[in-house]
Amino acid sequence: MAGSTFGTIFKITTWGESHGKGVGVVVDGCPAGLSLDEADIQKFLDRRKPGQSKYATPRKEDDAVEILSGVFEGKTTGTPISLVVFNRNQQSKDYSEIASYYRPGHADYTFDMKYGFRDYRGGGRSSGRETIGRVAAGAIAVKLLNQLGITFTTYTKSIGPITISTENFDAAEIARNPLYMPDVCAAENAQNYLDACMAERNSSGGVIECIVSGMPAGIGDTVFEKLDANLAKAIMSIGAVKGFEIGDGFDAAKATGRSNNDAFCLAKDGSVTKTTNHAGGILGGMSDGSDIILRASVKPTPSIAATQQTVNKSGEETEVSIKGRHDPVIVPRAVVVVEAMAAITITDALFANMSARMDSIEKFYR
Amino acid sequence: MAGSTFGTIFKITTWGESHGKGVGVVVDGCPAGLSLDEADIQKFLDRRKPGQSKYATPRKEDDAVEILSGVFEGKTTGTPISLVVFNRNQQSKDYSEIASYYRPGHADYTFDMKYGFRDYRGGGRSSGRETIGRVAAGAIAVKLLNQLGITFTTYTKSIGPITISTENFDAAEIARNPLYMPDVCAAENAQNYLDACMAERNSSGGVIECIVSGMPAGIGDTVFEKLDANLAKAIMSIGAVKGFEIGDGFDAAKATGRSNNDAFCLAKDGSVTKTTNHAGGILGGMSDGSDIILRASVKPTPSIAATQQTVNKSGEETEVSIKGRHDPVIVPRAVVVVEAMAAITITDALFANMSARMDSIEKFYR
Amino acid sequence: MAGSTFGTIFKITTWGESHGKGVGVVVDGCPAGLSLDEADIQKFLDRRKPGQSKYATPRKEDDAVEILSGVFEGKTTGTPISLVVFNRNQQSKDYSEIASYYRPGHADYTFDMKYGFRDYRGGGRSSGRETIGRVAAGAIAVKLLNQLGITFTTYTKSIGPITISTENFDAAEIARNPLYMPDVCAAENAQNYLDACMAERNSSGGVIECIVSGMPAGIGDTVFEKLDANLAKAIMSIGAVKGFEIGDGFDAAKATGRSNNDAFCLAKDGSVTKTTNHAGGILGGMSDGSDIILRASVKPTPSIAATQQTVNKSGEETEVSIKGRHDPVIVPRAVVVVEAMAAITITDALFANMSARMDSIEKFYR
Amino acid sequence: MAGSTFGTIFKITTWGESHGKGVGVVVDGCPAGLSLDEADIQKFLDRRKPGQSKYATPRKEDDAVEILSGVFEGKTTGTPISLVVFNRNQQSKDYSEIASYYRPGHADYTFDMKYGFRDYRGGGRSSGRETIGRVAAGAIAVKLLNQLGITFTTYTKSIGPITISTENFDAAEIARNPLYMPDVCAAENAQNYLDACMAERNSSGGVIECIVSGMPAGIGDTVFEKLDANLAKAIMSIGAVKGFEIGDGFDAAKATGRSNNDAFCLAKDGSVTKTTNHAGGILGGMSDGSDIILRASVKPTPSIAATQQTVNKSGEETEVSIKGRHDPVIVPRAVVVVEAMAAITITDALFANMSARMDSIEKFYR
Repeated sequence: MAGSTFGTIFKITTWGESHGKGVGVVVDGCPAGLSLDEADIQKFLDRRKPGQSKYATPRKEDDAVEILSGVFEGKTTGTPISLVVFNRNQQSKDYSEIASYYRPGHADYTFDMKYGFRDYRGGGRSSGRETIGRVAAGAIAVKLLNQLGITFTTYTKSIGPITISTENFDAAEIARNPLYMPDVCAAENAQNYLDACMAERNSSGGVIECIVSGMPAGIGDTVFEKLDANLAKAIMSIGAVKGFEIGDGFDAAKATGRSNNDAFCLAKDGSVTKTTNHAGGILGGMSDGSDIILRASVKPTPSIAATQQTVNKSGEETEVSIKGRHDPVIVPRAVVVVEAMAAITITDALFANMSARMDSIEKFYR
Repeated sequence: MAGSTFGTIFKITTWGESHGKGVGVVVDGCPAGLSLDEADIQKFLDRRKPGQSKYATPRKEDDAVEILSGVFEGKTTGTPISLVVFNRNQQSKDYSEIASYYRPGHADYTFDMKYGFRDYRGGGRSSGRETIGRVAAGAIAVKLLNQLGITFTTYTKSIGPITISTENFDAAEIARNPLYMPDVCAAENAQNYLDACMAERNSSGGVIECIVSGMPAGIGDTVFEKLDANLAKAIMSIGAVKGFEIGDGFDAAKATGRSNNDAFCLAKDGSVTKTTNHAGGILGGMSDGSDIILRASVKPTPSIAATQQTVNKSGEETEVSIKGRHDPVIVPRAVVVVEAMAAITITDALFANMSARMDSIEKFYR
Repeated sequence: MAGSTFGTIFKITTWGESHGKGVGVVVDGCPAGLSLDEADIQKFLDRRKPGQSKYATPRKEDDAVEILSGVFEGKTTGTPISLVVFNRNQQSKDYSEIASYYRPGHADYTFDMKYGFRDYRGGGRSSGRETIGRVAAGAIAVKLLNQLGITFTTYTKSIGPITISTENFDAAEIARNPLYMPDVCAAENAQNYLDACMAERNSSGGVIECIVSGMPAGIGDTVFEKLDANLAKAIMSIGAVKGFEIGDGFDAAKATGRSNNDAFCLAKDGSVTKTTNHAGGILGGMSDGSDIILRASVKPTPSIAATQQTVNKSGEETEVSIKGRHDPVIVPRAVVVVEAMAAITITDALFANMSARMDSIEKFYR
Repeated sequence: MAGSTFGTIFKITTWGESHGKGVGVVVDGCPAGLSLDEADIQKFLDRRKPGQSKYATPRKEDDAVEILSGVFEGKTTGTPISLVVFNRNQQSKDYSEIASYYRPGHADYTFDMKYGFRDYRGGGRSSGRETIGRVAAGAIAVKLLNQLGITFTTYTKSIGPITISTENFDAAEIARNPLYMPDVCAAENAQNYLDACMAERNSSGGVIECIVSGMPAGIGDTVFEKLDANLAKAIMSIGAVKGFEIGDGFDAAKATGRSNNDAFCLAKDGSVTKTTNHAGGILGGMSDGSDIILRASVKPTPSIAATQQTVNKSGEETEVSIKGRHDPVIVPRAVVVVEAMAAITITDALFANMSARMDSIEKFYR
């Protein structure tokens, strides 16, 4: 099954495993004339780089991106942009034992069931390194969207039981703490919580929130290609994500029509806007011009040092304790992955929308 | 934007608006040789039919399905199956007023922003009638999957604040109450809650849960075409759905690795299984052989009789009170839609999986 | 295999068999705001209608099209346009015998090999009636393209050995003779040739040519989605077409660079043009602003009254003589099918092209 | 427009320009368990390598392929296979002048019209080097198909006016002469013809033929995804190809039903076969079990040393004479490209076909 391509017009194809020669992505359908260099992409990759705090694996990886095609004299040419990050820090020995048994919470067993065997080094294609291609492509999408006035604010909303508070929300704080939380108190509490998890050879889950501002209204489709449906697929395709919400999400199920409906009103400039945003910026699958608000639930890192029960490849029950360098929480490093996938999805939707009306098409071509 | 087709190999294309001549679906990629008649499809459509209780709109619609192609002598031929339900009970007058303003919580505004104008009769393409095509196609998918030993149990998990309890769970109860809840007490409480909502000219949301049993392990893909990612898109593409979960969903974000990991163990027959199912039957994007468990958060019906603030097409603020025949809760009628979309997604994944291994391909063709 | 959908943004899905309840098409991705009524479509269907001359099957079919969705108050709404032609003149008895053997030159044998059985009435899904959906969708595409200044001239270039001459070419003649030939002399000779074929219970092939004028330059893509590659697929997907050419086609293989290259020059208005058009309007997969010229080779009608050798379903060799009402030549009725498929392909390419340049996107959205 | 991906289940994505860092391909959907190493791919790339005779450009390029992902311990893993050929022999100076004018027969003008500017070095994305990715992917497809008993014989059928004769046909001769012609006399005549072309600073076109043996019957679809339609797109997407034929191709247009129909008969083993193969192995879009025979018309190399008229970017008419190292004929080096694209198309069709029948699916999954 060909499952490594995402998007229809703005289309990305990722490749690579954790312990192979490298990982990469081909970005096809990027318009010609966008200024782009390796630094634009590197700054996004650096947001997911390991080894930056004690809450992330201490592996030191350069993750230096190289543009192999599609850019000429500092601008995209309209042809596919091939991006690669060669693997440099491969300690295969750390992983050799795991070939023999199925790690709980990992894709080892399902991989064997699907393909008959697997590249067992470091999780292979199911490793978090697979997201490098997504983030590299997402950097291009975000740059493109910024030029259209669309911006992203993405952060850790909660770690285990610790959630940011609305009162303390400070976007400037996101880049200041290793957990990417926009609330200095919550970030401190979450660090204490993670210290306790680590002491117990345990790990934690959390929630990532992404806010997209500056969206034009009317983007997305009314049936299967609803903007929120495509965002859901994009976000749920990130490893370890177990839930997706738009706007009030699961709280909407408990609400009533009176409390959940957003009233339309007029902004000072006379344009149509809403008094509230329970809908999270999407009505009937199309953007309504308000901020798009989405959330992802990320499960705890399955690789824990504590002893666990499992089955080995000889079909015997056994006990395991996962060694090696693992993140006690995936959430902070996944923040940029969520932003990348949201940006890729929105770029594709904007391009698809350009032929929605006959009058726009006539204006474009005549 | 062409957004009315879903699926890659088992592919459905829906068409039709609430007050046009009819609604329908073309199912392409259905294998030849499946026994199929109109009764197989009708029984699914009857599960979403309005007018069956006071908690659903009192409109009486026959919703009688007709097979126009793709079936010969009682069996599918492998060619596209065209299914149509002609609209019979069209009271256009009920809806004429809504052409002039934007209903809160509806797609009126976003439709106008996207296309410049809209078919304002009964919501047009954004109406719940659009799901008839999905359900008709889903009936085929469920029948096909049943022949492979895969079965579905889908029900209302909660209405507003009323949730079923694990202790009272009784699948046989689902068909017995108008809310499709597998818990006789919760169903009674929920009906009381809905009565109160209706008295206040208000509406309620709820949660739908779907359990898929009998899945072979290894179905789905490891990156963008993860089975749970495609299920998320399928379910989020249903109107009014604002959140999606697989397994523990948002609870996984609060959990730790120790509590969230499912230990592998051996079943009595020596096969690999798990002691728990926090993962909801999917690991690394592929089915693990356990039950797939998914949930959808459904927002309250936006059409309420209570007075609401909005804006009209002349750009003036105004007040509206939605008249007409509306469901006080969408959840029960959407249960079969969730099941249909899940079945369509799983059928497509099963077909895509057939070429995953060289040894299977050689066995198939030599 | 889902093989009944064509196109990426402007997307059509056809359904129906020759002797089922009807045939139809869903056109998805048509922009909102195009004026459209049934007469627009009917005039295209009438060009492929049988029974109009002795060179076409004497079956009298109304082939009256009905619009079921996607049009409101005389304009497309942007939602899927469902078109249907119900079958009225079904003489199943004519075809019942053919269930038992494989007609030479038909898809009977390959259908059985693929699906295990087939709808044997009138060729089922392989019947020429399948093209009704294509022509109905093509009528919409042509209308849309005409509004952008793009026009089509499509005709029979040759019947068997009789070819039109450049000197006699008269586009006005196309609609005047039953063979749709733009050369009154060739049309007369071809009719004599066909009379002789019919007398021998034989049939004839021919060539269809389509000229597309008014194309903007730069439409199409440089690699797999070359405009000529997509036109080739579109045209070769029409039953009975065995060859496709763009510009000089197979004559280019015999040419030299000096004779085949088209020199660029300046038109009177200072725009870039070419002194010749061996390329047929496409360079490197993209339109160059000259007329697009394409040709399809159509094989002789395989259904002939003459005795032929074949094999029956019991695996015995046998002789057959195809009875029933068959066209002695398919070419004239296929002219409009070629035009339809070309128009659908070009519409899709124009829509895809709208996001090719960053400056156009910024202009569109800011 | 995303136009660098081809295929649905077996899917390839190419990237790279002639004078960038390299060219490559990502092959997605290749089944797990196929033995594969770099030598398997290199031998296909060597068939298109320049500098092997005086009839090909004297550039010496290693074109050494590297596998970056998707292969573990000598076998494909089911994950994307990333293949790269880094560019080593880049003489940018040769091409610098061409930035200023539009070369006749090239994509310079159409590129500028589409994207506003272009990578003018060596043709950029429109260069023949783009086919390296196709050939590398095709090597995998051919290896896979060989294991299913499907084999390819591909060769130069004609160069300019010189065509191979049926009597002299000798497949063993293909690898022995630099023109890949299966006829020793024709090969000698063609070399003389090319010598004369080169003396006149001219170039020649030709025809490539590909025969696919061992195909199972029933592969392909009946409507848009006809096997011959997809082969047409695959072959026409190769630069310089101007025509495509299946079986008798354009000769079928001159034939009659009696001469063109292939009679069915029984083979000695009792299986159904045909007495002739005018159809080229495909009936109604599906393989009929006979050899698939297809042809591509290749135009003369547009880069010729002779003086030609054109227009420069300042909008002035000018004369040019293309310098640099160019093939006097593209045909021999394109032989392996045709084979590669045919193999990729057929692999995809075989995979899609696996879910055509309910009985096969039940056997696969129960």
